[in-house]
Amino acid sequence: MAYRIGIDIGGTKIASGLVDENYRILLKKTIPTLSERPYMEIIEDMAQMVRELISEAGIDSSEIAGIGIGCAGAPDRKNGTILYSNNLGWYNVPLAGELRKLLGIPVSIDNDANAAALGETLAGSAKGSSCVVMITLGTGVGGGIIIDGKIFAGSHHTGAEAGHHVIVSGGEPCTCGRKGCYEAYASTTALIRMAEKSARMHPESQLASSLKENGRLNGMLIFNAVHQGDETARKVLDEYLFYVSEGLVNLVNIFDPEKIVIGGGISAQGELILEPVRRRLAQDVFCKAVPLPEVVCATLGNDAGIIGAAYV
Amino acid sequence: MAYRIGIDIGGTKIASGLVDENYRILLKKTIPTLSERPYMEIIEDMAQMVRELISEAGIDSSEIAGIGIGCAGAPDRKNGTILYSNNLGWYNVPLAGELRKLLGIPVSIDNDANAAALGETLAGSAKGSSCVVMITLGTGVGGGIIIDGKIFAGSHHTGAEAGHHVIVSGGEPCTCGRKGCYEAYASTTALIRMAEKSARMHPESQLASSLKENGRLNGMLIFNAVHQGDETARKVLDEYLFYVSEGLVNLVNIFDPEKIVIGGGISAQGELILEPVRRRLAQDVFCKAVPLPEVVCATLGNDAGIIGAAYV
Repeated sequence: MAYRIGIDIGGTKIASGLVDENYRILLKKTIPTLSERPYMEIIEDMAQMVRELISEAGIDSSEIAGIGIGCAGAPDRKNGTILYSNNLGWYNVPLAGELRKLLGIPVSIDNDANAAALGETLAGSAKGSSCVVMITLGTGVGGGIIIDGKIFAGSHHTGAEAGHHVIVSGGEPCTCGRKGCYEAYASTTALIRMAEKSARMHPESQLASSLKENGRLNGMLIFNAVHQGDETARKVLDEYLFYVSEGLVNLVNIFDPEKIVIGGGISAQGELILEPVRRRLAQDVFCKAVPLPEVVCATLGNDAGIIGAAYV
Repeated sequence: MAYRIGIDIGGTKIASGLVDENYRILLKKTIPTLSERPYMEIIEDMAQMVRELISEAGIDSSEIAGIGIGCAGAPDRKNGTILYSNNLGWYNVPLAGELRKLLGIPVSIDNDANAAALGETLAGSAKGSSCVVMITLGTGVGGGIIIDGKIFAGSHHTGAEAGHHVIVSGGEPCTCGRKGCYEAYASTTALIRMAEKSARMHPESQLASSLKENGRLNGMLIFNAVHQGDETARKVLDEYLFYVSEGLVNLVNIFDPEKIVIGGGISAQGELILEPVRRRLAQDVFCKAVPLPEVVCATLGNDAGIIGAAYV
């Protein structure tokens, strides 16, 4: 049995796992990133994590076929460097090379959203599919594209940024500098913006009471209001899902995937999210002569990033 | 030397050519489609065209390795049928099978915009590139995506519809039923709409005189006015290129291509079109840490569809 190690590094934490050939995580570890530190300290912590995984599993490092890292940011896969990462404040960091030097094990890198899409395809909600579009709805909108069972990210491996396609030209400002990106309408940040605006316009609503009580809204408060029948919250959710679907129809017209996977905290809402999206796809997709893609929620949570990273 | 035959069939005409292994067209024929006829009559005409190409070239039909057809519409490549085609009024037409029966030569089919993108990649403006996005700006906006040197169109081969991704949610109605598609802003139809609206608002402009004189505007009249320094026409072109670029930035963020090819009649304008698009990409593309794609105009014109079709 050959094992692999997957590492998922973001601005807040580093999660890692020992993964077997059946894409199961046998052992898992998480440490804080403390991203303000020099990058070599972070890489040394990653090496220490890997050593602990190996030692606690009671295996030899020669049984590790490779280490893969999913990193928030733009990877140069060929050279093993992170070209830049907003979340980590990194610029041209030789991540793979330095970790390989410390451990003597081959190291590959990729973007974290790409790794998550691969993880869901290998072992989760899209198992058995070869053409998959995954969007992760969180603070931003992450995109991962699987074609022929492999990550697709273009000629420099910096594409698949589905969150940064404009759907409302001239619309809400996006973190990337453009206006009207999918991310500016389909992220949870966007949902909260819509909900707070609507709460202010409808002071009689539960959403408004919730905003008053908590100072700010969040996903949980908004979905609580929806589940308790608040009409204002329901309309906000409808508006939000209109935009989520608008971008998904675009991606179906472009990628004609077998499966669409929706990830992020919001995916816990299941059918409340999926049903309106499916209805919209059936209505709006360009080619109605072939079966629609199946729309599902991600099932692996944070494990997707570890399992996928192990195989990048 | 093995030859192939490429056929490009649209609502108005059928163009075909004998293509050699160096992607050169040795002989060419064009006939009207007369699309109202029963499809078998059209397929019989196609067979006759192929026979004439073979006989005029003085070769034997055994030297034809295969025939490929690029057809406006949604192809089922596996079964060789056209699922539907608006331009031809076809629904489930067994195009490849019937032509093969008539000629005894293997026949493959694909969408015409996909075939054009492959043609430009094999022999034209994108020769040598393996990841290419081509958009054809005409009555509509056609999309063709090349990944690893091959046509990419998704799991049922009905994707790559770049013209049908919404960039202005709730905007201008599109022929596909949605509102605000790229096609509704970047087609020549859209350019004419913008120009006629602007001409009516600026009766002092050359664009307005041109509209009055001709009853309607067209691409040639609009570009004439631009070249003669008409400010109203220049502003219309700027607006149009804003939207052309908006969609192209989206496609770069998603596909990270080596090359973008702009096809359609408008591509004859060369740098007048390319320069503003390049400027916008440099400003707006998400990942600025890797080289921008080269933006070029298609060079093969209608031949792209024939050469590409020969190799689908």
